[in-house]
Amino acid sequence: MNENAVARLRITCPDKPGIVAAVTNFLASHGANITALDQHSSDPEGGAFFMRLEFQTPRLDVARAVLEDAFAEIVAQPFQMDWRIGYSSDTPQVAILVSSQEHCLMELLWRWSRGEMDCDVGMVLSNHPVLREPVEAFGVPFHYVPAEGGKGEAEARMLELLEGRFDLLVLARYMRILSGDFISRFPSIINIHHSFLPAFVGADPYRQARERGVKLIGATAHYVTEELDAGPIIEQDVSRVCHRHGVDALKDMGRDLERQVLARAVRWHLEDRIILDRNKTVVFV
Amino acid sequence: MNENAVARLRITCPDKPGIVAAVTNFLASHGANITALDQHSSDPEGGAFFMRLEFQTPRLDVARAVLEDAFAEIVAQPFQMDWRIGYSSDTPQVAILVSSQEHCLMELLWRWSRGEMDCDVGMVLSNHPVLREPVEAFGVPFHYVPAEGGKGEAEARMLELLEGRFDLLVLARYMRILSGDFISRFPSIINIHHSFLPAFVGADPYRQARERGVKLIGATAHYVTEELDAGPIIEQDVSRVCHRHGVDALKDMGRDLERQVLARAVRWHLEDRIILDRNKTVVFV
Amino acid sequence: MNENAVARLRITCPDKPGIVAAVTNFLASHGANITALDQHSSDPEGGAFFMRLEFQTPRLDVARAVLEDAFAEIVAQPFQMDWRIGYSSDTPQVAILVSSQEHCLMELLWRWSRGEMDCDVGMVLSNHPVLREPVEAFGVPFHYVPAEGGKGEAEARMLELLEGRFDLLVLARYMRILSGDFISRFPSIINIHHSFLPAFVGADPYRQARERGVKLIGATAHYVTEELDAGPIIEQDVSRVCHRHGVDALKDMGRDLERQVLARAVRWHLEDRIILDRNKTVVFV
Amino acid sequence: MNENAVARLRITCPDKPGIVAAVTNFLASHGANITALDQHSSDPEGGAFFMRLEFQTPRLDVARAVLEDAFAEIVAQPFQMDWRIGYSSDTPQVAILVSSQEHCLMELLWRWSRGEMDCDVGMVLSNHPVLREPVEAFGVPFHYVPAEGGKGEAEARMLELLEGRFDLLVLARYMRILSGDFISRFPSIINIHHSFLPAFVGADPYRQARERGVKLIGATAHYVTEELDAGPIIEQDVSRVCHRHGVDALKDMGRDLERQVLARAVRWHLEDRIILDRNKTVVFV
Repeated sequence: MNENAVARLRITCPDKPGIVAAVTNFLASHGANITALDQHSSDPEGGAFFMRLEFQTPRLDVARAVLEDAFAEIVAQPFQMDWRIGYSSDTPQVAILVSSQEHCLMELLWRWSRGEMDCDVGMVLSNHPVLREPVEAFGVPFHYVPAEGGKGEAEARMLELLEGRFDLLVLARYMRILSGDFISRFPSIINIHHSFLPAFVGADPYRQARERGVKLIGATAHYVTEELDAGPIIEQDVSRVCHRHGVDALKDMGRDLERQVLARAVRWHLEDRIILDRNKTVVFV
Repeated sequence: MNENAVARLRITCPDKPGIVAAVTNFLASHGANITALDQHSSDPEGGAFFMRLEFQTPRLDVARAVLEDAFAEIVAQPFQMDWRIGYSSDTPQVAILVSSQEHCLMELLWRWSRGEMDCDVGMVLSNHPVLREPVEAFGVPFHYVPAEGGKGEAEARMLELLEGRFDLLVLARYMRILSGDFISRFPSIINIHHSFLPAFVGADPYRQARERGVKLIGATAHYVTEELDAGPIIEQDVSRVCHRHGVDALKDMGRDLERQVLARAVRWHLEDRIILDRNKTVVFV
Repeated sequence: MNENAVARLRITCPDKPGIVAAVTNFLASHGANITALDQHSSDPEGGAFFMRLEFQTPRLDVARAVLEDAFAEIVAQPFQMDWRIGYSSDTPQVAILVSSQEHCLMELLWRWSRGEMDCDVGMVLSNHPVLREPVEAFGVPFHYVPAEGGKGEAEARMLELLEGRFDLLVLARYMRILSGDFISRFPSIINIHHSFLPAFVGADPYRQARERGVKLIGATAHYVTEELDAGPIIEQDVSRVCHRHGVDALKDMGRDLERQVLARAVRWHLEDRIILDRNKTVVFV
Repeated sequence: MNENAVARLRITCPDKPGIVAAVTNFLASHGANITALDQHSSDPEGGAFFMRLEFQTPRLDVARAVLEDAFAEIVAQPFQMDWRIGYSSDTPQVAILVSSQEHCLMELLWRWSRGEMDCDVGMVLSNHPVLREPVEAFGVPFHYVPAEGGKGEAEARMLELLEGRFDLLVLARYMRILSGDFISRFPSIINIHHSFLPAFVGADPYRQARERGVKLIGATAHYVTEELDAGPIIEQDVSRVCHRHGVDALKDMGRDLERQVLARAVRWHLEDRIILDRNKTVVFV
């Protein structure tokens, strides 16, 4: 294995005494050096247990598959664990979906080009043709899939391009609603919504915010589920606003929020820092 | 007039050229020294105009009533102004309504006792008897009005105690809904809601927040209108939370937010910093 | 042992593989249910290792002393650990030192009276007599130790009152500098400094902040060492300010910061969440 | 004049009654519609007065030069004003100086290319050759001026390229110290320093921050004066950090702060929102 290789183990199981000992014991006995460990119990009596470990693999005494088989039998099964090991050497494949606004897309491509996002951005797909040039400048293929033919036809074309090839779709201000069937075909889809959810679900949230007269605007990155803007929240942030800020000023300020919130959420996802807890997230940062 | 006296003029009118000149000219010509001026135009073409001026009154060449009559005729009428002058020498009368949780109440009483809130706190009224002792320790009369007899009876008793005597009611975690008739009998009522409105209207917002899995919790101070939690927002703030925070931890952290947000809103109200713009506020801070 | 008793183990040692496994194994084998575990490696190769565990003690199969002896021999010694177990049933004894400003003191007493701080506040000591009444209203003894006789005499009197009786001294805007000898006689002393350290060390930091024209003011809670305002920082926070805020306004806003920052630091200390790392702190929150 | 043209008047003078009236009266009498007005008195008795007005020029009854001459004579001279009118139609010329780190530069170029910064970016100048390609992709000339020949030679070459051509230099992580003579030849120079000034002046502030163990890191945009990192502060912001963040993580997080803080400062400068008050700034936002 690679000298700098890191593996990340994520676990969920019913809480009971001895889990941490069993897991760390197993890993230590195989030469893994644990460099980070976070755990969370939703309730010490009868709750759920969540754990994330980062360990260095160079001194492992067995191959990856052997280690995983042994872990499954010796540790995971007795504790009824739902678990997964991610290896830093397995680069995740990411596609970005976008409409006509480029700020979130550019932020992701820029960070990725600097090496801040550990993935391959293999495609950008848009229902508008306008962002082809800046995307291709990053050496990333751009596909224009117009929406005119109807949602069914567009989604069919998108599935042709995307299905089976990507571990993560990022909706970087992609302004069309995806069908439940489409969503179900991808392991993970992250969306950025331009409000502090659950406030201002749906269209034109900055206008809604202006009309309600809120004193803070927000942005929310969440996993996409079939119900609109209702999936597990990964990250949120807010900016202070006042009566001077019309809808356009809110959009201006909101763009900065959206860029940062989405970039943080995608990074945490790629670093295997997120564990789902029904419709919520446990994020170990 | 008092050597240190300050007056605050608040104006709303249709926007058109010349308003600032007319107002400042009038005041300057009567010996008022303007020490703060804030203005806001909702739209330079055909919008509404909002202005707040602070001026020192010691060198005024006329009495207060004469000044106001002259202002009405010479300035306010031609510009169709809705206006009001508040004088620092007219101490506002404030009553606080509370249920059984004391944190917001104590924050207000503590600041008031330090001279940070320019008002008389003349009464605390509660639907629980438990906070009598700490309130009376501040030298403030405490009235217990039980809710058992029904809303009609309780409100009648409350009106007896409050009506006509107070410029401002503050609902410092007062957990009962007031009738539209009751609300209409007071110039201003400020409430603290323990969420980032419009998210989590109604009961038990920290539990709602926990269930939705938000990454920030909030508090909102707003003027009370007949529609629950829907009045003009004065101030909001948020705190970052994570999966570790159960409902009780959210309540703990939320208390700190509520204390600060309510204290700021009440202070701004008392300093005549707030102008209503339909269901929104213009807050000049 | 108590049914709800919780113990908190804090460890520092040179980092090497197997620490987490050894510790959790030991605890699991004695019936301890680990409900929180945080660890930090300053560097996976040759750095220092820090860990905090919370575990429930009701099902422990041995007495506290036996457990500690066994832990020392079996786990701590082989890994050269610096370690300590705190038990929620051992209530820490706290004394608060204050000068004439009451805001930090009142915040602590208020939170303590609500049960938010798990300690006994056994004494308030001041170099001014003015705060006796509000302190005694909380049922806490107040001692006035004037500074007039010189530092030596005052500190001697203070040591008589404090030494050997308190686990923690909190300097809640205590405006006198303590000698190195005095400091060395107490396990822990926490101070609140009214600036964002290391900016504006020493006297009158709000005036210094105003003169430098900063756009944020801050407050810093830190452990006290002999060098003024240079001890390990526990917590800091800031508030946005602008040209409108004179020194008095900065002091006003700063008070709110100081209250919160000090309260958080004291709470984390009492919950055994802080481990010293030379002149820095590892705070597991 | 242009139908959408906006002018911005900035004034400083000794405070006395009647200034606002005199200025707004003058403008109103010439057909200017004031759409924003901010004013600040450092002290109502004997302090300095600062004011910024935005007014629309389409209905002005005189030419720009005539207006300015009349203003000078009728208003500015009697009140001893230091004043300046900026016109939105006069596009400021901006040059950006950078070393090898691109994040601040890219943020500015990206915002400028979107129309968020009302200026011409006419040149990027660097003491490293590496950023030529991304700069030229924005259509902006790039000049590489190596530092090897010594500061005198490099500055002479830079003056040849820059002097007399630019209203504003922006130091977007330009890591060389400029001489007092060089600085004096430009109307305004804005720098981004990667700390919360006045903490951590000079080299490697993230390392300094890590060593001091601060719990927040910051960034500061300021006007450049001869004294290093001591010029008037325009904007600052901070991010929360903890023991987990090594120097590299601080740099990562700091980049996001630097980009935002510098972008805000440059935007405010270009919108004539900043007035100098000796070594401080009055920023009307």
